Amino acid sequence: MESIIINLSDSKPLYIQIYEHIRNGIINGDYRKNEPLPSIRGLAKALSVSKITVEKAYDQLCSEGYIVGRERSRYYVAELSELTFFRPESVKSKKTPDTLDSKKAYIFDFASGEMDSEGFDFALWRRYMGRAFSDVPRLMKYGDPSGEAELRREIAKYLNHSRGVVTEPSNIIVGANTQVLIAQLCTLLNAEKDIIAFENPGFKNGRRIFTDYGYKVLPISSENEGIDIDELKKSSAKAAYVSPSHQFPTGHIMPAPKRLALLKWAAESGAYVIEDDYDSEFRYYGNPIPAMKGMDTKDRVIYVGSFSKIIPPSIRISYMVLPENLLNAFKERISHYNQTASATEQLTLALYMADGQLERQIRRLRNIYSEKRRIFISELSRAFGAEGEIHDNGSGLFVIFEVKTDKTKEEIKAAAEKNKIRLSFLSDFYMGNSPEKSGKRLLLYFSSVKASDMEKAANLLKKTVLE
Amino acid sequence: MESIIINLSDSKPLYIQIYEHIRNGIINGDYRKNEPLPSIRGLAKALSVSKITVEKAYDQLCSEGYIVGRERSRYYVAELSELTFFRPESVKSKKTPDTLDSKKAYIFDFASGEMDSEGFDFALWRRYMGRAFSDVPRLMKYGDPSGEAELRREIAKYLNHSRGVVTEPSNIIVGANTQVLIAQLCTLLNAEKDIIAFENPGFKNGRRIFTDYGYKVLPISSENEGIDIDELKKSSAKAAYVSPSHQFPTGHIMPAPKRLALLKWAAESGAYVIEDDYDSEFRYYGNPIPAMKGMDTKDRVIYVGSFSKIIPPSIRISYMVLPENLLNAFKERISHYNQTASATEQLTLALYMADGQLERQIRRLRNIYSEKRRIFISELSRAFGAEGEIHDNGSGLFVIFEVKTDKTKEEIKAAAEKNKIRLSFLSDFYMGNSPEKSGKRLLLYFSSVKASDMEKAANLLKKTVLE
Repeated sequence: MESIIINLSDSKPLYIQIYEHIRNGIINGDYRKNEPLPSIRGLAKALSVSKITVEKAYDQLCSEGYIVGRERSRYYVAELSELTFFRPESVKSKKTPDTLDSKKAYIFDFASGEMDSEGFDFALWRRYMGRAFSDVPRLMKYGDPSGEAELRREIAKYLNHSRGVVTEPSNIIVGANTQVLIAQLCTLLNAEKDIIAFENPGFKNGRRIFTDYGYKVLPISSENEGIDIDELKKSSAKAAYVSPSHQFPTGHIMPAPKRLALLKWAAESGAYVIEDDYDSEFRYYGNPIPAMKGMDTKDRVIYVGSFSKIIPPSIRISYMVLPENLLNAFKERISHYNQTASATEQLTLALYMADGQLERQIRRLRNIYSEKRRIFISELSRAFGAEGEIHDNGSGLFVIFEVKTDKTKEEIKAAAEKNKIRLSFLSDFYMGNSPEKSGKRLLLYFSSVKASDMEKAANLLKKTVLE
Repeated sequence: MESIIINLSDSKPLYIQIYEHIRNGIINGDYRKNEPLPSIRGLAKALSVSKITVEKAYDQLCSEGYIVGRERSRYYVAELSELTFFRPESVKSKKTPDTLDSKKAYIFDFASGEMDSEGFDFALWRRYMGRAFSDVPRLMKYGDPSGEAELRREIAKYLNHSRGVVTEPSNIIVGANTQVLIAQLCTLLNAEKDIIAFENPGFKNGRRIFTDYGYKVLPISSENEGIDIDELKKSSAKAAYVSPSHQFPTGHIMPAPKRLALLKWAAESGAYVIEDDYDSEFRYYGNPIPAMKGMDTKDRVIYVGSFSKIIPPSIRISYMVLPENLLNAFKERISHYNQTASATEQLTLALYMADGQLERQIRRLRNIYSEKRRIFISELSRAFGAEGEIHDNGSGLFVIFEVKTDKTKEEIKAAAEKNKIRLSFLSDFYMGNSPEKSGKRLLLYFSSVKASDMEKAANLLKKTVLE
């Protein structure tokens, strides 16, 4: 390699051009191992550049191990015996579609509990965010692994007056979403040995986390009044995952006697109850059902809450309330993890809550959804008449709608695809077979459908399911 | 329970007061099971409230299962046989300190790579955030589980021109931090059977994730030029976790021949290389060392990158580049997970990058840190003289400083605590015993120490370590 010809352009630093040229030559096998490089002085002269430029190029090649310096400041091509192995066989041409493209544009998405498009005042949120931004030194740091203290204080207050849960800010762990928190919880239990009991039907994506982390998930029937305690007692489950205030997806409320029986099972068998309180704010008559955590005098309940039904889910904040007996082990563990939720968003939410805005927002959404629900149910009745029956207990963002139809689930799904709507079936949420029913039970979220579109939505549903 | 005395106040809705009074009575055992409640009409009259108010209270109690309705609209106390079990034994009085309080205030924190306090222009960031907020419909939705498409496109461009990595936006997965992404990766491998090889010494909190998820972690010596390939070949590791551009914590650069050997091992044994490229932007002379992923023609490298050294770590965005052969399995898996990074922050970063601000920010920080490093090294030399030796290869946010001292590690840690500084030892990052050295090797981050405080910092270090 006594002579190197490089066409020096002016778009990149000269030393980078020399470095890249030699590096590519070595990678492509143009130079043999131990081949000497031109002297610095010689190459500088040949290229009409300064010696310093060549030196910088050689330094970079040395740092990366492509060349080695030996006696009297001469450099040699390093031994790169594995190189031929890595020579690209052909230029990759791949056409994996970007995920955004694969996300279809639905006219109506009844399968997702996304927020009403006018359900949030971003201008107001930005004002609080402006205040959060005023604490720059705070925002320069890695946040508290448990969550910003101000936010945990506000969550404790909120749980106390809205959910009947008395807890300390130190028992609260904040994370970007429920799944991250549950995944961290997974590391506290023993995946190889422990069994997690799940309501069946139940929260599929919650179940999924446990199976992804190697747990055995045991489905326990909970068609009517929530999880079957006798079945649970016969199992050797170490935790039961339930949604007592508004069972997902059936919508049932777990009655007080069953709550107590469940807590007793946990206390007696040393197990935990994971209470997923995902949308209890939205009860349209009466008061919200208090959380089971409020009854937890034996400290067996892990309470999991999320803001993503109240503030837009693009803002990623969830939380978990841990029993005292899990707290130390968990805190030791998360001290090795960085916080997942944005500190700016956490501090913004804390200010927003402290000013009473969260409660105002809940009232506002409750009004919007109450009205939407009323219209949706009435439009469904109008469109389906005797062919459809609504199972609804006046809370949440979805209704269970049982339709008398001869179509199979697959036929309905194909028609939905064709009509550009997305819907899900209650049977999708079962582990194993769902019990046979004469009709098809649909789970229909109404939260993101515009009130003015409800008539059209019900008609399109009818077309999809019945015609 | 034929008579109920309630002092009705006006701070809560009347029906809630009635509901709470009866509920608490039932929980406290003041009423027997099956005891009838007063009639609606009777109670309304006794309390001088409307019948509707009492009905609402009873409805709520019914919904929660405390009372049951039977014949002729009379209500009875439900059977709550487990109740005595849950009566609180005593009022919990707990004094778990809030985590914020337990975080000590250090004068100098040499153990954390936090950003220079003037290293980021939040006003500029907020301008881009303002633009991100303009797309309200977008922010009302759950984001793409892989990350917002605009950001993935910008990351692909950045990796291409700054790190020599050619990839498609569809191979990029965004998450709130590196640990969340690695945890998700953990679910793709087989925790029960698979062994993960780690550089030793190495990134402790990365290792920790794998052990938390049940993997066996195998330390492989990497004192000098990175991970020992012969040791690796003898192992049955399914993945090797490395930081080739700036080994953590030794600071070494993995030379090209070793990179190729490592890639060959992965290709031949069907294993993966997890490349943690945590701070390669900060090389103070020469060009940044290109990522190993750029050589990965056999598609065995999982590249993990983070922005938290470049933009403040309160903004939580990291990413991972997956090989094509893992992509489908991973995407299927994360389709069940919600995104962890804030969509607002993702879109803000995409706009910031598209305008070239990220590169400006990197240049700016590189200048700040280059100057700080120069002063820090010079102050350390001044303070320690022949008692200290700097091992530094001109990159990153920390230096390894070897000190001749008779003090034990424990004595130095105690003195550090007393002097309100935080520091870490190279030996902290070893699995098992670290090799005996005559001196104590400290890992000292200088990134968050003010340039004007460097003299004081070096003096305090000397006092801590030598005196």
